[in-house]
Parts: sequence; C-alpha cells; structure tokens
Amino acid sequence: MTITLHPSTLPAVLAPVITPFNEDGSPDAKRLLKQCQWLEKNGAGQAIFGTNSEANSMSAIQKMSTLSALVEGGLDPAHLMPGTGATSIDATVSMTRHALKYKCAGVIMLPPFYYKDVSDDGLFAYFSEVIQKIGDPSLQIYIYNIPPVTKINLSLSLLERLVKSYPSTVVGIKDSSGNWSYTESVIKLLAPSGFRVYAGNENFLLRTLRAGGVGCISATVNVNPKAIVHLADHWREADADQRQIDLDQIRAIFDQYQMIAGMKTAVAHYGNNPEWLRVRPPLMQLSGDQQAKLISELEKINFSMPGL
Amino acid sequence: MTITLHPSTLPAVLAPVITPFNEDGSPDAKRLLKQCQWLEKNGAGQAIFGTNSEANSMSAIQKMSTLSALVEGGLDPAHLMPGTGATSIDATVSMTRHALKYKCAGVIMLPPFYYKDVSDDGLFAYFSEVIQKIGDPSLQIYIYNIPPVTKINLSLSLLERLVKSYPSTVVGIKDSSGNWSYTESVIKLLAPSGFRVYAGNENFLLRTLRAGGVGCISATVNVNPKAIVHLADHWREADADQRQIDLDQIRAIFDQYQMIAGMKTAVAHYGNNPEWLRVRPPLMQLSGDQQAKLISELEKINFSMPGL
Repeated sequence: MTITLHPSTLPAVLAPVITPFNEDGSPDAKRLLKQCQWLEKNGAGQAIFGTNSEANSMSAIQKMSTLSALVEGGLDPAHLMPGTGATSIDATVSMTRHALKYKCAGVIMLPPFYYKDVSDDGLFAYFSEVIQKIGDPSLQIYIYNIPPVTKINLSLSLLERLVKSYPSTVVGIKDSSGNWSYTESVIKLLAPSGFRVYAGNENFLLRTLRAGGVGCISATVNVNPKAIVHLADHWREADADQRQIDLDQIRAIFDQYQMIAGMKTAVAHYGNNPEWLRVRPPLMQLSGDQQAKLISELEKINFSMPGL
Repeated sequence: MTITLHPSTLPAVLAPVITPFNEDGSPDAKRLLKQCQWLEKNGAGQAIFGTNSEANSMSAIQKMSTLSALVEGGLDPAHLMPGTGATSIDATVSMTRHALKYKCAGVIMLPPFYYKDVSDDGLFAYFSEVIQKIGDPSLQIYIYNIPPVTKINLSLSLLERLVKSYPSTVVGIKDSSGNWSYTESVIKLLAPSGFRVYAGNENFLLRTLRAGGVGCISATVNVNPKAIVHLADHWREADADQRQIDLDQIRAIFDQYQMIAGMKTAVAHYGNNPEWLRVRPPLMQLSGDQQAKLISELEKINFSMPGL
C-alpha cells in the first residue's frame, strides 16, 4: 500500500522540549531557544509545550510570550509544533491563533481534560468550535492522545469523524496511549486518507514507520535525538532492528525515573548547568542519590550529549 | 467537644454557581449576577467558578473579568468564594490575587490536576509557592478535593502539613470525594484546630454538621437553596432527619442526569429562559426527551424555584 500523507514541513522526529525555568518559576526563553537549536542541529523538530515541557505548569500568557521569543530569536517555525490545548475553548483558541501568527507548521492539541466520562459528541463539539472560531485554512492540528494523564479516551470513531469533517485541518495525532494496538488501528483507519500518526514513544518508532506512520514525538528525543532521528531516516535499512534495540536500551534507563526530572538531570549534567534541574510543582526534581544513580548508569553505556 | 472554627463571613451553605453563557460561548456576567442575587436572597453564598460552574471551560481572563463585573455590580464579596485553582502556579496566583483585590472572603483552590501520581511533597510545594507568592495575610484558602474529576487524592497528612505550615491561610476544605469516612477523618483531625470542612454534597449535610463541620457547597444548592440553607440553620431541631430525607429526594432526581445540564434545564424551565440550557463543550445539554422527563419528575413532587 502506498500512503500519501498530508504535506508538512515537520520532521519525522520531534522532541516535546523540556522547559528550563528561572529561579522565580518563570520559563527561561533564552535557554529554551538554545535547547531547541541543539535539537534542530540533531535533526529533531520541536513540539514545545507538551507534557514533558511541563506545559500545563505554565499559564497561557507565559507560553505565548515564550513562543514569541523563540521565533523572534530565529527558530524556524516550519519545525515547530507547539502544544495549544487547554481545558477551555477560549484559552485553546488564543494560544492556537498565536501559534498561527508565528507561522508554526502545526499545533498539538490536548482534548479538554478537566471533566471525565465525557461523550464523543462533546469532544467533537469542542474541537469543532475551536476550529471554526479560528477559521484559518493554514491551521494544521495534531490531536494529542495521552489517556494515562488526561484520563480521556479518544475513540477511533471520534477521530474518523474529525478527519472527515475537517480533512485539511485535523491532519494527525500523537498517540501516547502506550497501547500499540490502538496506534496501529489509527494508522490502518486513517493513514490511507493522509493522516499523520506519530508514536508517543520511540519504543514504537520502527513499528509505526513500518505500519505507515510518520515517526515519533517522544520524551527521550530530548536526550537522544541523533540516534532516534537516524532510525527514522534509515528505517528501511538492514540494521534498523538493531538500532531500535539500541534506542530501547537508553529509554529503559530513563524509564526508571520520573521522566521529566530524569531528563533534566541528564541535561544539567552533560550541559554542565545545574539550573536545568528545576521542575515546577507538583513535579519534584530527583533526589541527589537518584541523580547520581542515573548519571552512573548513563556513564556505564558511554552515553553522551555532544554539542550541548 | 466545643470546636471554634476560623472566623469567616462565609455562610454555611454555598452554591457552586452554574454559569450562563452567551451564544458565542462567553460567560454572561449580567445573568450570572442575577442568579447570584437570587441565591443570596435564599441564604446561600456563591462559590462561583467551581466544577458545576464549568470553571475550567472558561479561560483565566474570562473568569477574572466576570468576577470584576459581579462585585462591581453590587454582589457582596463577603459571601463569595471563587474557584481560583488551575494547573499552573502562575494562573492560580493571578486569579487568587484578583479575588483578593475584590475582597472575596475566601477562595476555593483545586490541586494542580494535569499530572497524575504526584507526590505529597509536590502538592505541598505547589500550594506553598502559591501562598508565598501571594504573601497576603487576608488570603483564606479552601482546598478543593474532588478526586472523581482530578484523579488526585489529597492525603490527610498533606492537609495536616498545609494547616500546620499556613494555619491562618489554609482554613478549610470542600470535600467532594463522595467518601464520608474521608470527610469524617478530616473533621476529626483538623476541625479542633479551627479548620472549616464543607461537604461537597448536601446528602452529607447533617452528618457533616453533627461531626463538627461547617456546612456544604453542593451542586443542587443551585436549584434547592432555601431548603438546604434551612437545614443548615436548624440542624439541631427535631425535624432535621426528616428535612435531610426531603433534600435527598430532590437530589436523587437530579443525580439521574448529567448534573450541570440537568440543573440548567431546571433553571431554564422555572426561570422561563431557554438561554440557560447552554453548556460549554465537552459537556452537552440534555436531549429534549431528557429535559421533558426531568421536568415531569420535578412537577410530580411540586418542585418550584420561587422568585427566579
């Protein structure tokens, strides 16, 4: 089967970029710009304001001013997919319009995550109203499915209804369900009509690409971008399965810790800047013992983050 | 045991006031003001911007401008307890400062509800930073415990730690756990030090008052304020158990429907204004059949909302 996906300037691999915070808890846009530039050099796009970015620990105002600073600082919006989903249509519309003003190639949008046990009709009405209020044909939305956090399940029929109703706007998904059979079902159902499916974890990268998906948007792209991008670029080659095993080995180390605090520990260590350790409550940074253990495990496998 | 609770101007019964919306989805502050005045006349305070207010379906900006309009429209802030909790400290601090500027007697604050499986230390750090950033001795916070929606459990030891650290600021809780043994444990542990416990459902009103709690902040205060306030004011009288049974009968009718859409159906009907039917996605209004069934059940028991 030949699948022709929606055209997009976004790469196959993006990092949900971790956010550096100042001592007062505000996002440090300058340091974030440097991190995005480092990811860019390693071939990864930047899905800023995702779960791993602590996006919901920032206000809408903080996120919009940070995005402005990134693009005005020279970051290429063709590789940017900011998270703009909130619990309210008003905030979601504001952040999405702002991302469009800065010509971001796409946005990644959570479903409204406050109420539980909501209906497909209610979720459809939510996304519909957002799309209609924005009313911009350049809008490209990636639905963000992350039921372990939102406790909201997005049914296949909801996705299909959104794609049929807004075929040039609802162009893809990041699936962080952790459930491969769901990811595979979405690809089978919607990739033939051009829908771009990103796995939410590089553990599923090779399977996603072989099934007809696009790539991955995954936490550990923040620390291991080059190897993940390499597999996405060369997945048809003979060594692909071995490369997937190598990726999984690094992922497994980080999976032992609270992911965001663990990645910040690595960036603080390899970038030699302890300010990176800061996370925003309710998250907590790793204890000194945990930090030492993580770094020692990484050193054992000769892990590095060159150019950081 | 004689318990001396923290002094407050807030009444024993408050409604998490349902929010009327304009056709474009924005909150209708004028109509909300009238609703709050009707509740006030019936003896109930106004916990605006709660779960039943669809608070998280409004942006922080919409909530702040609505609160301004209410107080500037003459509503007494001594009876107001706006919800100011968000997922970010920055938004929570902004909304809380705004409520204090308008001299609201208290605020009700959700825990940060995006991340799951967060630690007590992380939640403590969150509330601590909010309180310290605001730095205003007039701040009175009611913690909003609603695990069926937030999927966050607030442990007794977390509450105790907050009360010990901020004894004049963390003054109470609204417990919407639906778990009486939890509510009772909080009262036993913390009411002796002045902590004000509101049940999140009038089904628990009499039990709460007898145990040493303050009263209730409950959805159906929106539709049945007078009888609920009467029980809170006369709970030591001989007919209290019968009055509780009467309250429960009305509650049971509404409990059969999505609560917010059901209450709006009643207000639209008895207030003769179909604009009240609007809810914000992802919630959906009741179907025509459901609306008719609810109203017919209410008519069977001669339910009314005089003065609406």
